[in-house]
Amino acid sequence: MREPIALPLDQAELTADLGGGLVRRTVHPSGLRVLTERMPGARSASIGFWIGVGSRDEQAERPDAPGSLGSTHFLEHLLFKGTPTRDAFSIATEFDRIGAEHNALTAKEYTCYHAKVRDADLEVAVAMLSDMVANSVLDADEFETERGVILEELAMAADDLADVANERFFEAVLGDHPLGRPIGGWPETITEARRADVDRHYRDRYDPSTLVVTAAGAVDHDRLVAQVLAALNASPEERWHTDGSAAPVRREQVLDAAPGGAQAPGADSLDSALHREPRVQITERPSEQVNLLIGTHGFSAGDPRRFAYGIMNSVLGGGMSSRLFQEIREKRGLAYTAYSFGASYSDSGVFAMYAGTAPEKAADVVELSRVELRRLADTEISGEELERALGQIAGSTALALEDSDTRMGRLARAELGSGELFDLDASLERFAAVTPEHIHEVAATLAARPLTVVAVGEASRSSLESSD
Amino acid sequence: MREPIALPLDQAELTADLGGGLVRRTVHPSGLRVLTERMPGARSASIGFWIGVGSRDEQAERPDAPGSLGSTHFLEHLLFKGTPTRDAFSIATEFDRIGAEHNALTAKEYTCYHAKVRDADLEVAVAMLSDMVANSVLDADEFETERGVILEELAMAADDLADVANERFFEAVLGDHPLGRPIGGWPETITEARRADVDRHYRDRYDPSTLVVTAAGAVDHDRLVAQVLAALNASPEERWHTDGSAAPVRREQVLDAAPGGAQAPGADSLDSALHREPRVQITERPSEQVNLLIGTHGFSAGDPRRFAYGIMNSVLGGGMSSRLFQEIREKRGLAYTAYSFGASYSDSGVFAMYAGTAPEKAADVVELSRVELRRLADTEISGEELERALGQIAGSTALALEDSDTRMGRLARAELGSGELFDLDASLERFAAVTPEHIHEVAATLAARPLTVVAVGEASRSSLESSD
Repeated sequence: MREPIALPLDQAELTADLGGGLVRRTVHPSGLRVLTERMPGARSASIGFWIGVGSRDEQAERPDAPGSLGSTHFLEHLLFKGTPTRDAFSIATEFDRIGAEHNALTAKEYTCYHAKVRDADLEVAVAMLSDMVANSVLDADEFETERGVILEELAMAADDLADVANERFFEAVLGDHPLGRPIGGWPETITEARRADVDRHYRDRYDPSTLVVTAAGAVDHDRLVAQVLAALNASPEERWHTDGSAAPVRREQVLDAAPGGAQAPGADSLDSALHREPRVQITERPSEQVNLLIGTHGFSAGDPRRFAYGIMNSVLGGGMSSRLFQEIREKRGLAYTAYSFGASYSDSGVFAMYAGTAPEKAADVVELSRVELRRLADTEISGEELERALGQIAGSTALALEDSDTRMGRLARAELGSGELFDLDASLERFAAVTPEHIHEVAATLAARPLTVVAVGEASRSSLESSD
Repeated sequence: MREPIALPLDQAELTADLGGGLVRRTVHPSGLRVLTERMPGARSASIGFWIGVGSRDEQAERPDAPGSLGSTHFLEHLLFKGTPTRDAFSIATEFDRIGAEHNALTAKEYTCYHAKVRDADLEVAVAMLSDMVANSVLDADEFETERGVILEELAMAADDLADVANERFFEAVLGDHPLGRPIGGWPETITEARRADVDRHYRDRYDPSTLVVTAAGAVDHDRLVAQVLAALNASPEERWHTDGSAAPVRREQVLDAAPGGAQAPGADSLDSALHREPRVQITERPSEQVNLLIGTHGFSAGDPRRFAYGIMNSVLGGGMSSRLFQEIREKRGLAYTAYSFGASYSDSGVFAMYAGTAPEKAADVVELSRVELRRLADTEISGEELERALGQIAGSTALALEDSDTRMGRLARAELGSGELFDLDASLERFAAVTPEHIHEVAATLAARPLTVVAVGEASRSSLESSD
């Protein structure tokens, strides 16, 4: 019988058997970090190149500064557009030729370039990703073409009313906090983006001390470390050369804010808002449904209450048996989808309940959502409901961890975030320690914060009224 | 060295080692079919209960008949709403308690209820799905509530302009063919749906002779067969009792139309439409982007040209290196997404090229798409491009087959469709036999059919003009 493992990521060389697979971590003197999890029997591997820099790190106050709004995401696009030895078409064909599932994503606190490939193709994927991350040329013509692509990406998101509601909700709840901004910027900032700014952002932010490489599945740790180091040292750009002098690991952008750390403005200035009317913000759009987000400030990623918060979200809006799904969809047929979620970052977060519904039912859905949050804040949940939530978390986490993608991402989040890697049992132990009282406290804390309602769609046909 | 396997599904008891896992098939005298694939080392399983009946089997001409439009999908929803021994809440909690990934889907030619669970939870999932499929009570109150849920589901789809374009495209290309109708019906047919019709549809269509159970992962074939038979025999409904007299397997709804079988109306009445202007159908909606589908009749699922067609779609619009992606996005920045696809059914299919773009760029995107299809029809592709497409198909298929979901679905599609199960090597052999000349022929066949352009969005700002 193995003991649950909570592995501190605090040594330059680390090896641990995490049950599912052998985890290894190497911190090179240059600051480069490589973490792998070898999964027995795997015939494929997932690999990610992570930089702990996201849209929140852009500088809104100085539009002339490196990293003007949307440039983190702009840079992510440009990394596919060519290096001194591979043009954009070569990058595309080399990935397609091996049938890779490859992509990149920009988040508020990190950027990731990733691929899933058959075991025999891993070296190709590592070579490609190393070259893209270290040696992008940010060609001026490609820059202009990609501006058009990104404007189309923003236009596509603007036509998705649930996406629009999500962006409005972050803005409404987090205000001027950098986490409140959309990841991709606005059409205006993309139209005005300058290659020099994106280039400076790249040179300032991307180097061995900010790079984390994680892989899971059929992966050999030592071979991966050697391949990445060789690729970086072959870069025409000196800043990537890892055989030079040692640089400290740069972790300023990590997710591991101290528990109880600073919240976004407004979150800690509240007494009881339990019965206060929510602030309603309407974005009028022709539509069949109104997309509703009802919520408030949440908890940061390192908050010790995160396990209770996870269970609370499972009970409130985590599945077909959850309270929101039952009350809004199953009992009343008011929506096709109803759920709740918490999005957590290093120093802040949001909590939200979502539903899409016909305009004339929107006010009912908002009221039902408020009632359910308040009910969790007023009354402790039953042991049976707690047990069911624990079962749901245990089952769904076990299923998720069968995928090398999930394990690859878990390594990166532990490295960039908490600095601690939990195996499944250690994680479930934390959830199992949660009591109904803990959940009650979390819900009461949320319910005491002023609620924001964001409605996107034909709200004029609803009885919702904007209070902004 | 194993030989590639193309396994005919023609015996009541069948066992074969398919490399990835051991495949077994049992046809019970009642007509019930059970197919499993045991994957070595798997700690979870995917299971599906499939009925070879979809929206195309509804009878549009007689609105009073069982199976009025949208009732297949309506029934799928109702199966979650209770049996004599489990109410809707019990069904929801029993799935959630084990953290199952469970859902159902209605397609044009089949309906599927499925779950992915940890190995120890498989028996629970089988018990639940058996009960739901065999013993649904279709409670009258639940029927009314679910009507509201389905109307919201249709409203959600109506707000998704890419979804709307898809529905319009099927209607425009397939006309009055039953495959041309939307799967979920229309708001009007759902508003008027009657419980008695859905109930009759259920009793007519769901019995052991139409049921196919497939599972992949950590599954024991004999135990699964025994459990399903026991559950069906315990049903209060006599039609499920498998220990009665033998019934023939009902395969009338299967996907294995003879190669060269009947096409939908219009597909075979054409000479060369190569340089004819496409028919343009516009659905005007306020939007940032116009969602474009450009295409025509495709090929049926059993068509011998399907392997060449698959490669053609890979070359034309299957990845970042594909011609549409390169011409529309990479060279000109006109769209965020551009791809092509074929949707194939037992006796017909559609072929389409998709892009979302700003209205003022829509005419250019349509023209570029036409040019690329015509270029494939006019000039044979290079060996290098063919080789790349084969690599992409080999890699992505191998990755997909690591997932028990994919293998579970593959068993069902082979059983309901071609009646033949290919292992990966046998499938790749068929693709490898394709020559540039075959691809040229497929493209020329498509290019000779009249093109339809469906545009959904603010097309009034484009230079597209409706030709309907």
